[in-house]
Amino acid sequence: MSVITKYVELSTQGNAEALNITPNLYNALEETELQNGVLTVFVQGATGALTTIEFEPGLIQDLEELWESIIPSKKNYNHDRAWGDGNGHSHIRASLLGPSLSIPFCTGRFTLGTWQHVVFIDFDNRSRSRKLILQFVGDL
Amino acid sequence: MSVITKYVELSTQGNAEALNITPNLYNALEETELQNGVLTVFVQGATGALTTIEFEPGLIQDLEELWESIIPSKKNYNHDRAWGDGNGHSHIRASLLGPSLSIPFCTGRFTLGTWQHVVFIDFDNRSRSRKLILQFVGDL
Amino acid sequence: MSVITKYVELSTQGNAEALNITPNLYNALEETELQNGVLTVFVQGATGALTTIEFEPGLIQDLEELWESIIPSKKNYNHDRAWGDGNGHSHIRASLLGPSLSIPFCTGRFTLGTWQHVVFIDFDNRSRSRKLILQFVGDL
Repeated sequence: MSVITKYVELSTQGNAEALNITPNLYNALEETELQNGVLTVFVQGATGALTTIEFEPGLIQDLEELWESIIPSKKNYNHDRAWGDGNGHSHIRASLLGPSLSIPFCTGRFTLGTWQHVVFIDFDNRSRSRKLILQFVGDL
Repeated sequence: MSVITKYVELSTQGNAEALNITPNLYNALEETELQNGVLTVFVQGATGALTTIEFEPGLIQDLEELWESIIPSKKNYNHDRAWGDGNGHSHIRASLLGPSLSIPFCTGRFTLGTWQHVVFIDFDNRSRSRKLILQFVGDL
Repeated sequence: MSVITKYVELSTQGNAEALNITPNLYNALEETELQNGVLTVFVQGATGALTTIEFEPGLIQDLEELWESIIPSKKNYNHDRAWGDGNGHSHIRASLLGPSLSIPFCTGRFTLGTWQHVVFIDFDNRSRSRKLILQFVGDL
């Protein structure tokens, strides 16, 4: 049993942009040569989050509309009054969706459904350079 | 330390039906004979999700009402305009709640509270056959 | 590779109080002497949950306002009509946010961002004594 750490580096536009990172995860899994185990994906930072979704433009827009409806970008947030960086909504959205995702893999394949993709969502209100941590725990 | 994969197969009705899968998880844990470690439960598919809840009818109905209030089934979704399968709300609900859950176990028992049950929620708009992946990582 | 179980015991006020447990997690990690792996934090009980956030008073208040806006404490819940304990909103909030969080660590440090703190949120409607399970899986 081994622990192997990999990273995904991303340039993002922010504003709830969703990036399909499934190919990045597969590249990293192949590099590890692990066959069976669990991948923990983790967002380093407080304004990004992870989930799975069928990555098609309609749903990506539906998801953005969800964020605007329950955590609007135009509202006045206490965070913004104190810090003035205007990204209170980014923090709250990221906290609700969550920074970690655990994905099993079996005989070198993630147990994702055919139309199920792993997405990183950058909720910040500006473009960012992002680093995701991939912690693999598993067997060769 | 071992990795052991098990599956839970379910017939569901969809429409935010919540199924208590705690007994299924215990059956699988006993089969592995593992004593200490972590179980990763993962939904294969983009319209189901996992969480814990006290499994009593009032709360199950309250949870359904939450979904209708923040992600209504009757709204027009961009996904539905493009794909015509009428389950845009199913996808968005599943992405918000999330496809994975990590549950520790110690001396052969999950660390759940007495009134805390693990539920799979099928958000699709029709009955489905579902397969959940149980990835156990632990010690005998 | 080892599995090591630790606990965090907390006295909480409830009512969506958020507690910064990052120092508790670091103390436990140092006690294990593990260098590389994954920590699974798990809430035992159905009315508490975990996430990460920049722990500053403005955001903590913004997060409380989110809960009141999407899962109000003053609404009538089916759970309360049956059980009379008035904490239906506590259960639903906890189920939405989720009971588990998986955090990688590398060379003895969690992979958290500088302003990213791990919080336990006690959604119950009264003060509680809480026990969180920390399951470490990793290498010395």
